[in-house]
Amino acid sequence: MPYTLKTLADKLELAYSGNADAPLDHICAIESLDDGGVAFINNPAELSNLPTPTGVFDSRQKNISQISTEAGGAIIVPEATSHPTLNLILSDDPLQHHIKATSLLYHPPERSGSIHPDASVGKNVIIGKNVTIDARAVIYDNVTIGDQTVIRAGAVIMPGTTIGSDTLIYPNVTIRENCQVGNQVIIHAGAVVGADGFGFYQREGVNLKIPQTGIVIIKDNVEIGAGSTIDRARFHQTVIGNGCKLDNLIHVAHNVQIGDHALIAAQSGIAGSTSTGSHLMMGGQSGIRDNLKIGNNVTLFARTLITSRTSDGETVAGMPSRPIKVWRKAQALINSLDRLVERVKRLEKRE
Amino acid sequence: MPYTLKTLADKLELAYSGNADAPLDHICAIESLDDGGVAFINNPAELSNLPTPTGVFDSRQKNISQISTEAGGAIIVPEATSHPTLNLILSDDPLQHHIKATSLLYHPPERSGSIHPDASVGKNVIIGKNVTIDARAVIYDNVTIGDQTVIRAGAVIMPGTTIGSDTLIYPNVTIRENCQVGNQVIIHAGAVVGADGFGFYQREGVNLKIPQTGIVIIKDNVEIGAGSTIDRARFHQTVIGNGCKLDNLIHVAHNVQIGDHALIAAQSGIAGSTSTGSHLMMGGQSGIRDNLKIGNNVTLFARTLITSRTSDGETVAGMPSRPIKVWRKAQALINSLDRLVERVKRLEKRE
Amino acid sequence: MPYTLKTLADKLELAYSGNADAPLDHICAIESLDDGGVAFINNPAELSNLPTPTGVFDSRQKNISQISTEAGGAIIVPEATSHPTLNLILSDDPLQHHIKATSLLYHPPERSGSIHPDASVGKNVIIGKNVTIDARAVIYDNVTIGDQTVIRAGAVIMPGTTIGSDTLIYPNVTIRENCQVGNQVIIHAGAVVGADGFGFYQREGVNLKIPQTGIVIIKDNVEIGAGSTIDRARFHQTVIGNGCKLDNLIHVAHNVQIGDHALIAAQSGIAGSTSTGSHLMMGGQSGIRDNLKIGNNVTLFARTLITSRTSDGETVAGMPSRPIKVWRKAQALINSLDRLVERVKRLEKRE
Repeated sequence: MPYTLKTLADKLELAYSGNADAPLDHICAIESLDDGGVAFINNPAELSNLPTPTGVFDSRQKNISQISTEAGGAIIVPEATSHPTLNLILSDDPLQHHIKATSLLYHPPERSGSIHPDASVGKNVIIGKNVTIDARAVIYDNVTIGDQTVIRAGAVIMPGTTIGSDTLIYPNVTIRENCQVGNQVIIHAGAVVGADGFGFYQREGVNLKIPQTGIVIIKDNVEIGAGSTIDRARFHQTVIGNGCKLDNLIHVAHNVQIGDHALIAAQSGIAGSTSTGSHLMMGGQSGIRDNLKIGNNVTLFARTLITSRTSDGETVAGMPSRPIKVWRKAQALINSLDRLVERVKRLEKRE
Repeated sequence: MPYTLKTLADKLELAYSGNADAPLDHICAIESLDDGGVAFINNPAELSNLPTPTGVFDSRQKNISQISTEAGGAIIVPEATSHPTLNLILSDDPLQHHIKATSLLYHPPERSGSIHPDASVGKNVIIGKNVTIDARAVIYDNVTIGDQTVIRAGAVIMPGTTIGSDTLIYPNVTIRENCQVGNQVIIHAGAVVGADGFGFYQREGVNLKIPQTGIVIIKDNVEIGAGSTIDRARFHQTVIGNGCKLDNLIHVAHNVQIGDHALIAAQSGIAGSTSTGSHLMMGGQSGIRDNLKIGNNVTLFARTLITSRTSDGETVAGMPSRPIKVWRKAQALINSLDRLVERVKRLEKRE
Repeated sequence: MPYTLKTLADKLELAYSGNADAPLDHICAIESLDDGGVAFINNPAELSNLPTPTGVFDSRQKNISQISTEAGGAIIVPEATSHPTLNLILSDDPLQHHIKATSLLYHPPERSGSIHPDASVGKNVIIGKNVTIDARAVIYDNVTIGDQTVIRAGAVIMPGTTIGSDTLIYPNVTIRENCQVGNQVIIHAGAVVGADGFGFYQREGVNLKIPQTGIVIIKDNVEIGAGSTIDRARFHQTVIGNGCKLDNLIHVAHNVQIGDHALIAAQSGIAGSTSTGSHLMMGGQSGIRDNLKIGNNVTLFARTLITSRTSDGETVAGMPSRPIKVWRKAQALINSLDRLVERVKRLEKRE
């Protein structure tokens, strides 16, 4: 069902200006606005300061000056914005309204709402309403899957695991036995939930395995990136709190407890038994040592390694981690070390 | 088959004190000891210095002071320990006896000992006794699998590969052609063994592929973490020595040779053609450059990058790596650089 | 079809010296040259300066002095080389001719050129000539696959994706919807192409998802390592340029554009919306921050993190990245900091 400027604005319950009948059929970025596209800006100044088109986008792309209200797509803009030639939709939160427009104009892959005949489903599996299980997915015995949940091809859910409702498990994900995955969770392709924690003890120079008998609990609204690994606890639980978002290739060790609403960028890791408060933010390729307590609202600069207890609200950088200001000052001092050496040399010469 | 304090202690061939008839049906950590649980401590002092329960465990958890011998689980303790109200099992090695108790009380997912009808098995495949091959596993032609080995759902074993006995291959693992995996090996979900090494040469600014014709040999008692990648050799073999334990998301490049009994924490990597002695220990997110010889008993602090030959017994840190003491001193000097600058300023002022 | 020194040299259109009838049936490294083996050297000096055999190779290995022209394999050597007892093939480019010999003597796993009955293929799938699709691979609807392309077991191709000709997709790879993969591309086991980019916005302390509606374009002759993840764009495209070679466990974020002919070593990452020129070289465990423009021919030392715009031809190291000379000098100054402190102490004492 295609939209026009008027019907889309109406659906979003927003005012608009321009050609009410302009057809709108896809979303796009402002720097590549084209016929039928719906873009957005957060700041009116972005309209006059658009990046030069780079040619990497498709051939329908036009310079913004070429776009008229006749057929030129539309821009969701802050309410104060006006423009003589562009179709505008006026919003108090353009980003959020653009995301609503996306849900109307963008169509992700279909969910069949049924179990593909090539799926393999074990015994005593409880499956909710409208569940999609694609070809070659494997559901072992005693698994529970909530309503509207989607299990894509090649995903494997081992015995005794429970998955909530409206959850999306991408291809080739593995979820090991007895884990608990919440509602509205997204687990991206190739991720592994519930592998054994890294636990060994030595006797006479030989590493012997410590059984990892706990589970992983992934709470609601969590997103786990492609190829990330969340290990099961030695005892009890590894916990990923509500609303946590983990990027790709992240490692979460056994018995870690991540508080709600963390944002963890790619290739970061948290070592065993560390617990964090809420709203942790980890830059890319960062890490936290084992057995630490980390406060609320702690932020790690990219490539930081936290090696000691860190309090509420701290922003840290470096390895070992220091408050960001201390780290920045140390970097500046290192960069001017050659001059310090010169100054000492001069002092040594005078007498 | 449930145990009591007496029957468990008898099975472990250990003495006990407390209520001989206390039922025991699961293992747990000391800080969450509950009815029926079996915990352990390595040091008698841990009994009087227990962490405060955090509430993250299940509702059966009690404060240790509430636990009586009547029904309060049991603790495997060092032989000298005594306690007025707790059920104790007296051991010369509590950790090891707790692990034995685990094998009695904890039940990992079933091994069917048979080939699932939804598995895909090629030609000339030699399969030992009591082998488990789960749904959607794919065994290509000319593969050999030893007795009691388990291949979980979605694992793929390519042609000509040999897997030993009592080995456990988790879901969605890939093992490429002609590799050799030993006995009692565990390979966790999503790991990749035998992908092409990263070998290219340039002609006129274009990268051309160098075929990677060797294999990977994984010796006995090795454990490979989830999502880890062990590349095949350019020629001959990449070797993971006996008893090596690799955590998640580890990269081992082509022609690497890791000596026996290494412990390598998550997200670490070893570059091409490097060989190591035995008992290598790598902290998380650490690395070793290519073409190096590393001695026995070398230890890397987390986030270390070894860039030069390292001798037996060295413990190193930093990038580039230095002996740990040198690195610690350099960190302290960097942290006091601002004071050094002040001292030079004062010297410049006096005359 | 086995070769002799004469027939192999003829096939390579090269001259030879030694026993024309020596049988040749496999390739090998010079340090493990054995009967029937074909090795190479780039420099005549390598013949007199061979590494001592290490015993890690198979028992057919001989010391080079034991090898005679009678049955001792052959070495592809630079044209000026001569040797009294070895079989030689004379080449103006020994590496390249050895690779040609590899294509004659080394046999990778068979390509059936057909669709395995255990594969799962959706509707409206367009499949070229001689395409191989192995057991348990899943091709969703509306996928296009070019001639001679190979899809190995357990690989999953989601709807609307196009894959070119002569491309090789290894087991358990996932390629998400609507992506475009070129010709002669190799994607190693467990890699994920087109997972959602890491995009969220906060409202009242809660992370909300920004839909990732773009795609990934992988151009021709690209190789993607095992377990690597290439995220789809928020809008439009993430692009991996022609001839780029990515090692294992690499992360490429949404909207990144990598120029042609990059070489990126294992466990490196590039953050969102960064674009690079051609011939980028990234050492292992390195990274580039988001939203940067990186020039042509930029080289990152291992473990470097680029945090600012970097111009054509720069070689950088450290975190934050600096020109390699600056970084090396800073490292040297840090290593001699204790002596600087001593010098300042002496200055303070004299008066």
